Order: sequence, then structure tokens, then C-alpha cells
Amino acid sequence: MTKEQILQALSNVEEPDLGKDLVTLNMVKDIEIDGNKVKFTVVLTTPACPLKDLIRSACVNAIHMLVNKEAEVEVVMTANVSSKRNGNGALPGVKNIIVVASGKGGVGKSTVAANLALALGLDGAKVGLMDADIYGPSVPIMFGARGERPMMVSVDGKGMIEPMEKFGIKFMSIGLLIEEREAVVWRGPMASSALRQFVTDVHWGELDYLVIDMPPGTGDIHLTLVQTVPITGAVIVTTPQDVALADAKKGMAMFMGKQINVPILGLVENMAYFTPAELPENKYYIFGKDGGRRLAEEMDVPFLGQIPLVQSIREGGDYGTPIMASEDKVSRKAFLDIAGATARSIAMRNANIAPTKIVDIVV
Amino acid sequence: MTKEQILQALSNVEEPDLGKDLVTLNMVKDIEIDGNKVKFTVVLTTPACPLKDLIRSACVNAIHMLVNKEAEVEVVMTANVSSKRNGNGALPGVKNIIVVASGKGGVGKSTVAANLALALGLDGAKVGLMDADIYGPSVPIMFGARGERPMMVSVDGKGMIEPMEKFGIKFMSIGLLIEEREAVVWRGPMASSALRQFVTDVHWGELDYLVIDMPPGTGDIHLTLVQTVPITGAVIVTTPQDVALADAKKGMAMFMGKQINVPILGLVENMAYFTPAELPENKYYIFGKDGGRRLAEEMDVPFLGQIPLVQSIREGGDYGTPIMASEDKVSRKAFLDIAGATARSIAMRNANIAPTKIVDIVV
Ligand SMILES: Nc1ncnc2c1ncn2[C@@H]1O[C@H](COP(=O)(O)OP(=O)(O)OP(=O)(O)O)[C@@H](O)[C@H]1O
Ligand SMILES: Nc1ncnc2c1ncn2[C@@H]1O[C@H](COP(=O)(O)OP(=O)(O)OP(=O)(O)O)[C@@H](O)[C@H]1O
Ligand SMILES: [Mg+2]
Ligand SMILES: [Mg+2]
Repeated sequence: MTKEQILQALSNVEEPDLGKDLVTLNMVKDIEIDGNKVKFTVVLTTPACPLKDLIRSACVNAIHMLVNKEAEVEVVMTANVSSKRNGNGALPGVKNIIVVASGKGGVGKSTVAANLALALGLDGAKVGLMDADIYGPSVPIMFGARGERPMMVSVDGKGMIEPMEKFGIKFMSIGLLIEEREAVVWRGPMASSALRQFVTDVHWGELDYLVIDMPPGTGDIHLTLVQTVPITGAVIVTTPQDVALADAKKGMAMFMGKQINVPILGLVENMAYFTPAELPENKYYIFGKDGGRRLAEEMDVPFLGQIPLVQSIREGGDYGTPIMASEDKVSRKAFLDIAGATARSIAMRNANIAPTKIVDIVV
Repeated sequence: MTKEQILQALSNVEEPDLGKDLVTLNMVKDIEIDGNKVKFTVVLTTPACPLKDLIRSACVNAIHMLVNKEAEVEVVMTANVSSKRNGNGALPGVKNIIVVASGKGGVGKSTVAANLALALGLDGAKVGLMDADIYGPSVPIMFGARGERPMMVSVDGKGMIEPMEKFGIKFMSIGLLIEEREAVVWRGPMASSALRQFVTDVHWGELDYLVIDMPPGTGDIHLTLVQTVPITGAVIVTTPQDVALADAKKGMAMFMGKQINVPILGLVENMAYFTPAELPENKYYIFGKDGGRRLAEEMDVPFLGQIPLVQSIREGGDYGTPIMASEDKVSRKAFLDIAGATARSIAMRNANIAPTKIVDIVV
């Protein structure tokens, strides 16, 4: 066996999402041949790639079929998270900046943001979670960090805020800089300048993914953010009912608008149904059925998955250990699938769409 | 029997909420005596007064005990909704301006506002509902008025917006002035000036209660509102979980703050528990148990009641007929009780606290 034969064989293996073969995509590295043993590395665009096993077995098959039926094939899977930042804007060390948004309040943006961040980090990606909800920050409670105060560090002579770390990810909330019982009664310009400073003054360092938990609405905070950093894409959260879908549409319309032009990575349907422990076969569609799925079709954006209404998900938020940091298999599965789908959507976005520009209009 | 005797007897009947007797409160009118028949009118401070029957029977008892055991007593109950406006600010014809607010998104502010307005109107009060949620208006969907456009009328030579009417109340939403699918991507100052105009340009006429559905948060819209009209009081809505309670506290802190100083009429706990039809004895405390009740105690504000999580309440919102306009006895009861408690709280506020001032600080 020769390296050329191996590469030739692997050039028949397609990365399904990116629609090109592994060799063209430059994803095969470090081929080592020793008798009828061959070992090589496939560099995925995300460690959370749900197609990992599929790609691995396609590689093995291709070598068996095209090179040597008897070959002992070892495929090492690593990832180099793709990016389309082009070095513009703040936070240059952050490869992908994902906003979790919605228009509607209380649909589970913070819950999805927190658990998405944890799930993306599980396979080794470096992940940060930023809570940009000035008026109603949830991350301090959800990460059990109420009343804690972040440390300051000096970076190149500049004082910066060191993000906290828990459950394997970095996180920071604007709520950790403000007295918890106080209301932030700020006019928009003040809120905006606080946010701008908050975004640029946290020392995130190198990250594969920075997940940003947004407040409800489509106002100042959203505008300021897209004017401060280039957003890789938006994950839209909705619950199934019409009043939520209407606002989710407004949220999408804002991001998709010409001036802002942030790609929609997909839609998450939260609180999809409730199943009482005593009636495990029953699904109660309290907030309606499949509203999110239908909206994704209608708007032609990826549907990232459904999350049921589960008491332990709520408790995870209230008690400071998000469900993804727990042992709860069933609920974890929903978020793991959504994280996989989101990571795929980001990889495709980076492969196919130009970098997001920082919005420079003054609305 | 003489009028004097009757008044003497009725001066022993206390209005329990106001802590004074009916005569001192000037609530007894039109005494007519004919043989052993006596008829008079008690003018309550709200037609939604839940103490109506109690007061009526206390009157009858007092006359039987103190004047004439045999008297045939007829008590006519009417109401003249009390007010503490002192003519300051916009909307001079509106006796009481109630905001429904929360801090937290999605807790049911719009649902409570709509059903509270309908419930207050049931006993004859003149009620309006104003949707001040610029970024995520819900009233057009909740009142089945999607895509409708309000009429303009000329009032004293000025063009004004005529509120719509349905289910016996007037309503108007900022969402009825904006294209539904469009996002309102406005900076704070623009949103504020839109709201200010919206508040002053709707021709509400004479109202006993104007209920205002607020957006989540504690930002521009809230500040602008308290600077435009004097708010009689705030009804705070929360769900039972910690992340919602934390934001509800912030919402209360804003209103109770020295500069803003709007009385809290009380706290509503929404989505308190879920009961599947198949298990009518079971209560699933998905979002936690009694969180709202405990917060009301902790903050020393009236607890206005609990509303369970019921699919028909959600459907009422989505399908354009709020549950208070339906036949659903059980869910209606929850809102009727809350409306009664709110009306009482307003009457007490008007009896005991100075008029709210329009906030003149520029934050
Ligand atoms: N799938 C779920 N099952 C049970 N509870 C959930 C679920 N998703 C979210 N929750 C709970 O619902 C409440 C609202 O969720 P969350 O705070 O994440 O919403 P949000 O969209 O961030 O709200 P806001 O608009 O106020 O920021 C929280 O108490 C959360 O724990
Ligand atoms: N008690 C309840 N039972 C079932 N569904 C409810 C209940 N209360 C509210 N809902 C539903 O929950 C959703 C959120 O309620 P609503 O829109 O009134 O909240 P909100 O606080 O006004 O949200 P926002 O912050 O976005 O303005 C709606 O679909 C509503 O119909
Ligand atoms: Mg949130
Ligand atoms: Mg609302």
C-alpha cells in the first residue's frame, strides 16, 4: 500500500454536509503505512460532528474496497473547528460567535444557550457562554454563580474581566457585574454602551465557539451586538404556540434583514410536549404541536430539534447545574442532538457563506 | 323607620378593605322608606368587588338588629370606581392605569393583562387594554385582530386612533400599527417616542381601568411610560421558578424605587401546576411550587392568586378568544378571583396612598 493509493481511495469518501470529498477538503492528515496496517487522521470541522462514525466507516470501506481487502485501518478523528471570521471585529481569538435569540420572552433561550454550550464542549471544543441579557440575566443562577464576582486580569497592560469556568466551559454574565436585587433601569444608549464594553472587556482568549444568550425582543442590545462583533449565525428558539411563532418570525426577520444579514443556523422547538411520569406513553401538547417544525419549513431554515417540557430541565436551571452537566440521559439526548445539528450547520455556513460583516449602519 | 335610623345602623357596617364604615365613606345613597320596606344604594369603589355579598348581608343584618327585625331590606349595589389621578398627565378620562409587568419574559404578562381586563369589565366597569410591547406585541393574536387596522377619528380637531372593541372592552396594540412580519429593529429613543405617541394618540375616552401589557425587562419602554402617564399601580406576574422570581424582583425593585415610586398592587403566580385530564387528582409542579406566593410574602405585597398551566388558556391566546371570553368555568374562576383581588387592591391604594406622580427624571 502507498500513501497515493490511500489518498486515491479516500478521495471517494464524501463529507455529506460539505458535499465534497475528504481529500479535496484537505481533511486527511498523517498517513502512516506499516505492512498491511494503515493509520491516518481525519480532521473534522467540529468535534461535535454527529457524522463522525459514518465518515469513519466510509473511510475503512473505501480502503478495503479500493486498496486492500485485508488492510487493518485505524482512523484517528480530530477536529479543527472551522471559522469564517477573517479577523474582523472584536474577540479575534474566537472562531465562531453564535447568538441564541428569539423575539419572544421565556421560550428557553437561556436554557438552550447554556446546554448548547455545554454540549458543544463535551467533545473537546473550547466553548464560552456569554449572557447578554442586561435586564434579566439568567446565567448566574443557571451556573450556580449567584453573588460571585469575576476576577480582573491584566492583558497587554489593559485590565480585563476573566471569565469564570464550570462544567468545562467558560462563562460570563453581565449579571455578575451588577447587584442582583437591583433593577437595571437604563435607557437604551446606556445599556448599549454597557454591552459594548462587556463584549470587548472579557478576556475569552481562544475559543472554538462563543455562545451568546440574548434578551427577548429585537432592540438595542441586538443592534449593538451586531455592530460590535461579526455573528457567525443565530440559533432561534421558539415554543410551539402562535404567539411565540409570531415573535420568532420577527426575530428571524431582524437577522435576515439586508442591513444585519446574519445567517440563521436553525430553529429549536422548546417545551414541545409534557409527559407525566405516571403516563409515560402520553404527550400533552400544552403549547401546541410541531409549531417550531412547521415554522422552520415555512421559513426554509434548518430544524435543529425538539426539547420536551421536563421538570428536571427547569430544576437544572434553578439549581445551578444545567441538565447537560447531569446524568439525565433522556433530556441530555435532546440537547446533544441539537448541539450536533448546530455544529453541522455552523460548519456548512462556514464552508458556503461569506464572513458576516460587522453592521456599520447607525439605526 | 327614619333615614337617620338607617344611616345610624349602616354606620356600623365596615368596608373591610378600607377599614371605615359605609356612612363615613359616603357609600350609602338614595334611602327610600315605605312602611317596613327600606331600599338604598351602596356605591362600591369597584363593580368587581368580591366583598359585594358580604357587605350586602352586613347591611341587612345591621338594620334587622339595630332598627327593625321585620324590615324588608333591598340593597342596590352599584359602583363608582375610585381614582387617584388628580388630573395629572395624559389620558385625563382614565380613572386607573394599571401596568402588568414582570422583568422575566414569557411568564404570562399578556395572558394575565388580557384576561384581567376582560374580568374587570364583566361587572360593568369600563375597561381598556393597551399593548405596549413594541418588539413582541401579543394582543393582536390574543384578540383575533391580526392584520386589522384601527380607524382614525378627529377629536377636538386632532387626529386620534380609535381603539378597537371586542368582548366588551376596548383594546389597542402598537402591533396593529406595524406590519406583522417585520421586526421592529429600533433603538431605544425611537421606540420610546413611538410609545409616547401611541399612549397619547389613542382616544380611550372615559375608562375606569386601563390595563397596560408591558414588554419584558426594565428598560426604555417602562421608563417612558412612567414619564408619560401616572401609573395607579403595577400587577407583577411571575412563574414559580427561581430564574423567574429573580427577574420579578428586579421588576418590583424598579417600580418601588424612589424615583419611579409606583405602588405594587400585587403578585400573580402563573403556570403554577399542570393537571392532565387523565389524572385529575395530580398536580405537576413543572416550574416549581408556590414560588410566587413565597415571593409575595417576602416582598410584603398582596398575593393576587395562582393560575394553573392549562392548555385551553394557551389556546385562548392563540385562537383569539381569551379564556375569560369562553365558557371554561375552572380557568375563568382563577382569573375572576385575581381580578377581584386586583380591584380591591386598587381601591385600597386609592384610599390610602397619594396619587402617583409622573416621573420627571431623565435617566
Ligand atoms: N424544556 C424545558 N423543560 C422545562 N423547563 C424549561 C424548559 N426550557 C426552559 N425551561 C424553563 O422555563 C423557564 C424559561 O426558560 P429560559 O429562562 O431559558 O427562557 P428565556 O427565553 O431565556 O427567557 P427570557 O426571555 O426571560 O430571557 C426557565 O425556568 C427554564 O428553566
Ligand atoms: N396559565 C397558562 N396556561 C397555559 N398557557 C399559558 C398560561 N399562561 C400563559 N400561557 C401561554 O404561555 C405563553 C406565554 O404567555 P404570554 O405571552 O402571556 O407571556 P408574556 O409574559 O406576555 O411573554 P412576553 O415576555 O414575550 O411578552 C403564551 O402562549 C400563553 O398563551
Ligand atoms: Mg433568558
Ligand atoms: Mg407579552
